Amino acid sequence: MNELTCALAAALPDGRVLTDPDVVDSYARDRTFVPPGRALGVVLAQSRDDVVATMRWASEHRVPVVPRGAGTGLAGGATAVDGCVVLSLARMTAIRELSPQDEIAVVEPGVITADLDRAAREHGLMYAPDPSSYEISTIGGNLATNAGGLRCVKYGVTRDSTLGLEVVLADGRVLNTGRRTMKGVTGYDLTGLFVGSEGTLGVITAATVRLRRAPREMATVAAEFTSLRDAAAAVSAIVAAGCQPSMLELMDRTTLKAIDDWKNIGLEPSTKAMLIAQAEGSADEMAALCGAASFVAVSSTPEEAAELIGIRRLAYQAKERLGQCLVEDVCVPRSVLPEMITTIEEVAARHGVMIATVAHAGDGNVHPVFVFDRGLAEPPEEVWTAADEVFRAALDLGGTLTGEHGVGLLKKRWLGLETGPVAAELHQGIKQVFDPLNILNPGKAI
Amino acid sequence: MNELTCALAAALPDGRVLTDPDVVDSYARDRTFVPPGRALGVVLAQSRDDVVATMRWASEHRVPVVPRGAGTGLAGGATAVDGCVVLSLARMTAIRELSPQDEIAVVEPGVITADLDRAAREHGLMYAPDPSSYEISTIGGNLATNAGGLRCVKYGVTRDSTLGLEVVLADGRVLNTGRRTMKGVTGYDLTGLFVGSEGTLGVITAATVRLRRAPREMATVAAEFTSLRDAAAAVSAIVAAGCQPSMLELMDRTTLKAIDDWKNIGLEPSTKAMLIAQAEGSADEMAALCGAASFVAVSSTPEEAAELIGIRRLAYQAKERLGQCLVEDVCVPRSVLPEMITTIEEVAARHGVMIATVAHAGDGNVHPVFVFDRGLAEPPEEVWTAADEVFRAALDLGGTLTGEHGVGLLKKRWLGLETGPVAAELHQGIKQVFDPLNILNPGKAI
Repeated sequence: MNELTCALAAALPDGRVLTDPDVVDSYARDRTFVPPGRALGVVLAQSRDDVVATMRWASEHRVPVVPRGAGTGLAGGATAVDGCVVLSLARMTAIRELSPQDEIAVVEPGVITADLDRAAREHGLMYAPDPSSYEISTIGGNLATNAGGLRCVKYGVTRDSTLGLEVVLADGRVLNTGRRTMKGVTGYDLTGLFVGSEGTLGVITAATVRLRRAPREMATVAAEFTSLRDAAAAVSAIVAAGCQPSMLELMDRTTLKAIDDWKNIGLEPSTKAMLIAQAEGSADEMAALCGAASFVAVSSTPEEAAELIGIRRLAYQAKERLGQCLVEDVCVPRSVLPEMITTIEEVAARHGVMIATVAHAGDGNVHPVFVFDRGLAEPPEEVWTAADEVFRAALDLGGTLTGEHGVGLLKKRWLGLETGPVAAELHQGIKQVFDPLNILNPGKAI
Repeated sequence: MNELTCALAAALPDGRVLTDPDVVDSYARDRTFVPPGRALGVVLAQSRDDVVATMRWASEHRVPVVPRGAGTGLAGGATAVDGCVVLSLARMTAIRELSPQDEIAVVEPGVITADLDRAAREHGLMYAPDPSSYEISTIGGNLATNAGGLRCVKYGVTRDSTLGLEVVLADGRVLNTGRRTMKGVTGYDLTGLFVGSEGTLGVITAATVRLRRAPREMATVAAEFTSLRDAAAAVSAIVAAGCQPSMLELMDRTTLKAIDDWKNIGLEPSTKAMLIAQAEGSADEMAALCGAASFVAVSSTPEEAAELIGIRRLAYQAKERLGQCLVEDVCVPRSVLPEMITTIEEVAARHGVMIATVAHAGDGNVHPVFVFDRGLAEPPEEVWTAADEVFRAALDLGGTLTGEHGVGLLKKRWLGLETGPVAAELHQGIKQVFDPLNILNPGKAI
């Protein structure tokens, strides 16, 4: 330890500060390929007071602080910067309160998202936002990125389930935002501002989240298509018919092939896309709306439904068997989903890059996964060129650079294309209000 | 016209600026009793460019600008301040775009909320937020206050339906926030920050709003109860059973009596409360959950449903027949709704004040309406004393000062009780970033 980290350790209970270089390195990255900076140390916060002490110390010594959940981020939001301390919230795992009557929970940032969902289900409730990583990602990280997920086509994203926050500000002061009620309009929406701000405005130490009644009967349908356009047409038909799907997932052939090679799902050579849809009510109606499908499977039991959805949940792991993956995250208006997917295929062909695409199709949120050689330290030039073309195409189609992963470090060079100079100035102004010393996750998100 | 307003008129197309004192006075108030200041004039904006020219002029001459929709606000947000110009957006009434495929619309602020809903319904969609005023209030005012409504128990408030905004900043620059997609996390949530900021951060000149599939079959139930507690218990039962009501309205006896005196709805002497619930699906289940009701009516046709809901929509007008009304707007966790309503009754009795209460019960959002003598210019002291006790009780119960009306001028003296000094400092800091000259609706909301 040096003088700085000694002072930090002295301000905290024993065992909270780690400075062993190998250990510190293991906290320096999320799941992106952005090369991390060298951190001074890691704080394993176990309480709000630990966070307060860390931020006071950081303000006093002007040390950058990089807050961190489970490190499952896909945009470099939790990547260490030179001279920082990494502030891990992963040990703050208390569900402080769960009120079935009020359908709310008060949770600490280190709670695993799926654990909160399971706790809610004991009362017939659910925590709706379910990023694909929900078995390993934390509420804190979900809040930082305003994470989406499969169910958000019906229930909205993390911000839509967040009623209030306890936040430690850059100078160590504690702020409570929002409320415990379903509605409330007192003051500016500071809660919404913190959600999605990627740790640049404050450190969230608790969140009051909204729970929802778990649906009673779910119908699940999986349909195979011989063209992506037919699959996209079924997406539109299911939405337009008012089925209100709580899941509407699309996988392209490259993704299905990767799954089939691994798990032998019996993929037909002619299948170009699969759609997995889930809704309350009748499966037959959704199945009928997949008119052009070459094959439709309907679940009649929860076990069968889990099996159908399980195929989708294998997608990332299956791709990781093929090589290293740059997981991207554009979102377009639903009507141009076919154009977006076609463009991705063209870009892949033009640059000789393997792109396997899954989409939260009901939201127009498309994840092109760029697969590249396992031996490389980071994505090769042609992958970045292809990604650049995909990002620009999404913007040209009226879409956004990131539907649910965040900007982090990874997308900062494209940020201005979407938000423009006026927004950039306002972002910097807001940052200055909350973090005048620029110590909170500097260089990220905005 | 004086020199200032002449310069303003010269910067705008003919006929946009009104300075006749009587006319200006008619734009100086909303529906509250806050005494307005004296405005220099009124701008009737017809385009974004009119707003840009007005804000440039206002910045140059440091003139306060009070943006205004239909003037139906209940917190003094649109009340004129001394030396201001009132900027009316009521003539910007274009629905610029309505895309059934993408389930979005791009609308100008002067569009009447119910008109947007009707336009959406032509395509099987709806615009969900429906403040009680939705036939006379505008989208712009709804955005400024983050208005709620009857349906928001299921579909959320105005912010939840807002994807992006076109905003004219204090200095006349134009900012586009947000997106046209269902999801998106690029940059800070400026869209959410403007919504509910009551015209203090910028002037909204267009909004991209989310439309939703209109539900297919609606079941409507009206139930009468001989005690408020029984009615509140039915609220909890309906929510807990997973009926997912899109309307769950409670009226107390004072309200029902006012309606009965006017429209002869056959109110029984023993009836203390009425609940009106609407949901997709079966009315029988909801009716059964109103087990303690003394009478239950179930609609079997849309006409009958409209009649049942019509009783609720008469509530405010019925009360206005009794005297002048101070309409209040606390919101509490649903589990303490009975305590909140009991407290209101006790406060009414203690101070000899007539309070008629309606509640968006599913949200815990309670509107105690303080009725006072028609001859008075503003609410008498005992009404304010009673209101103060109601506000403090709501906060003590874990609630908020305002569920959907906003802070405006009316609630500024209570604001600090809810948000505290740290939030106040951040509010002022944000205000300074967006409006360094403090010309946008100064003195309101924060």
